[in-house]
Amino acid sequence: MATVMGNVIVGQSGGPTAVINSSLAGVYKTARDRGAKKVYGMLHGVQGLLQEKVVDLADHIKSDLDIDLLKRTPSSYLGSCRFKLPEIKEDTEIYDRIFAILDKYEIEYFFYIGGNDSMDTIKKLSDYAILNGSKIRFMGVPKTIDNDLAVTDHTPGFGSAAKYIASITKEIIRDGLVYGNQSVTIIEIMGRNAGWLTGAAALAKGEDCEGPDLLYLPELTFDVDDFMKKIAALHKEKPALVIAVSEGLKVADGRYVCELTDNVDFVDAFGHKQLTGTARYLAEKISREVPGCKTRAIEFNSLQRCASHIVSRVDVTEAFQVGGAAVKAAFEGETGKMIILKRISDDPYLCVTDLFDVHKIANIEKKVPREWINETGDYVTQEFINYVRPLIQAELTAMMVDGLPRHLRLED
Amino acid sequence: MATVMGNVIVGQSGGPTAVINSSLAGVYKTARDRGAKKVYGMLHGVQGLLQEKVVDLADHIKSDLDIDLLKRTPSSYLGSCRFKLPEIKEDTEIYDRIFAILDKYEIEYFFYIGGNDSMDTIKKLSDYAILNGSKIRFMGVPKTIDNDLAVTDHTPGFGSAAKYIASITKEIIRDGLVYGNQSVTIIEIMGRNAGWLTGAAALAKGEDCEGPDLLYLPELTFDVDDFMKKIAALHKEKPALVIAVSEGLKVADGRYVCELTDNVDFVDAFGHKQLTGTARYLAEKISREVPGCKTRAIEFNSLQRCASHIVSRVDVTEAFQVGGAAVKAAFEGETGKMIILKRISDDPYLCVTDLFDVHKIANIEKKVPREWINETGDYVTQEFINYVRPLIQAELTAMMVDGLPRHLRLED
Repeated sequence: MATVMGNVIVGQSGGPTAVINSSLAGVYKTARDRGAKKVYGMLHGVQGLLQEKVVDLADHIKSDLDIDLLKRTPSSYLGSCRFKLPEIKEDTEIYDRIFAILDKYEIEYFFYIGGNDSMDTIKKLSDYAILNGSKIRFMGVPKTIDNDLAVTDHTPGFGSAAKYIASITKEIIRDGLVYGNQSVTIIEIMGRNAGWLTGAAALAKGEDCEGPDLLYLPELTFDVDDFMKKIAALHKEKPALVIAVSEGLKVADGRYVCELTDNVDFVDAFGHKQLTGTARYLAEKISREVPGCKTRAIEFNSLQRCASHIVSRVDVTEAFQVGGAAVKAAFEGETGKMIILKRISDDPYLCVTDLFDVHKIANIEKKVPREWINETGDYVTQEFINYVRPLIQAELTAMMVDGLPRHLRLED
Repeated sequence: MATVMGNVIVGQSGGPTAVINSSLAGVYKTARDRGAKKVYGMLHGVQGLLQEKVVDLADHIKSDLDIDLLKRTPSSYLGSCRFKLPEIKEDTEIYDRIFAILDKYEIEYFFYIGGNDSMDTIKKLSDYAILNGSKIRFMGVPKTIDNDLAVTDHTPGFGSAAKYIASITKEIIRDGLVYGNQSVTIIEIMGRNAGWLTGAAALAKGEDCEGPDLLYLPELTFDVDDFMKKIAALHKEKPALVIAVSEGLKVADGRYVCELTDNVDFVDAFGHKQLTGTARYLAEKISREVPGCKTRAIEFNSLQRCASHIVSRVDVTEAFQVGGAAVKAAFEGETGKMIILKRISDDPYLCVTDLFDVHKIANIEKKVPREWINETGDYVTQEFINYVRPLIQAELTAMMVDGLPRHLRLED
């Protein structure tokens, strides 16, 4: 462990999660403990790196307390970007610039914490290194609340988002029962193409909560008429309905449900059309068409990826572990790989890290298998629940200062 | 304490809070410990009482563990209602029915946990009892997230809602900074006429967070043009803006900001027009009119009143105390009063309970004083923050079962 290793750089990319900084802590602490000379952070990922926005992390993460605060800090500590590198054959100039900057800082190990697009970056940079005789090692550290990365059993970030979603779904179900009158609450959950998070709302079901009544995942085509019929029928049987829908629901002609409205389009910070409005559209439709039915629409929104005040300890620990495992593997000479999680057993839950070729991971979306959605397409199966349940276990207590959770800020 | 007292009934009314059940626990435990024969709960408040929906709480709250779970259970355990009694002179029939039911159950003490409308109920029932020679004592136990009850320093329920709002505002501010690009996030906070909760977003400001940029409370008329000018100017200085607005903002002609849209009206379960859409309206307007500005709208929604997974310990304790103090006072012969909180000092925070004539409380809304809003009308002052800060202190750990906070359910 005392061997002096070369310089390290680490970046964060894509949408943040509640535990993405735990992976950063894992990279930083493991690299430092294993003898890295310098551990640099790139601000706003590769996009910032291209502008040489690089900090020495030792200037910012100064103590073990800082490391523990970092683990509890939501959103990407280093800032993030959405930036896709061109194919190597299309434009080598940008690659030359990146490698020139990496050489300037004498970087030998490069870690990128991210999802699909970030693994594409690792793939391309490691290919370019091999093609051009660079000795720099490139390793991917998985994260995404969406749980849509291939090969890995699950993705750090998903467990905490699932725990948050299940917890607040319980609270909303409880709140919906308060007046004992007829009501329908539609909750809208993130996940453009994969329904892992929407399905996680089912975990609200337990001894003290009956869970949501219906769940609609984006893996299946959404039938508005069929939905309305189910609501009209259920509404007669049960006073307060709670339905969870994915923001990415599409109807048969390929349009998103949220595009069925005539509202102004929201475009997010990256030019992606914002897929909010699915719950609102459905709630308004029920309000108009089902007599005597009061409705409300609740968007869980970006809190799904930044609610660090309720995280899964399993998730925080695994996020840290994948960061550490990436450093260990790179220091041992690996490159062009992503750390994956391999589940040994569900109960008792046991999961280990492993390495996998990033070429076979990048740009593949893992969706919820059809057999984990029930036949009528409106709930998840027990297998789905058994898969998710271990990932939401246990807590990491926030460090509360003056009544609020304390975070670590880069400026500090 | 061992004296045998008469039967007690307790109900919950109006919008729930995260700690309304802590007050119920305070009434139940204190009444039981002080020798009440039976402690009944009315389901869905006076509305349920009129249908004799009454349970013996000893059948449902069976252990000290249940009492502690009850304190951690969001939304009204007994169910709630929104029901206003007629003036006594207008309709005595309904009063006769209520008193007949109370007499049937040999009730001597009646406790109602609620806000303004509930205190109006206590006022009328205690008046009716005096007019008709009934010996039943009626006591009000204050609760509302809105903090708009008169006379009391603050209202149980407000501290936890404020803590939740400040905590997630911190997370959202952090999330907004992640890409380092120009963005405006508008968060919409509950409070139809009083801006206590919107102002509480300012508590996010601290050593590790710069807080929201602007806050708009419903106490002041909202000027859309002035707002747009401020955004355009601020947007040039600062990449990621976070603005908190009250759902109840009104423009000079008296319309709500959310009515400026052409969306379908949402009507809530009680026929009140739902005031959501203020943030969405403003975000869409900025999106259209400020070049290069990405926007998002986030409604904090009903989680403000049911997020029991992050509550203020001060609030939970005070909610319990006001319940207990109401029982003690009623057992000592008081009637027609509400328990109030009297602050002795801010720092160190010290607060005691007292009694106040409910006639001087009911139907009066306490708003944020003008001098606690800054001159330009877009932030709260340090006095406001000093007032709220003690109310969000400390935590009550949820009892986590299989990864999620456990609640107590009436059916259990």
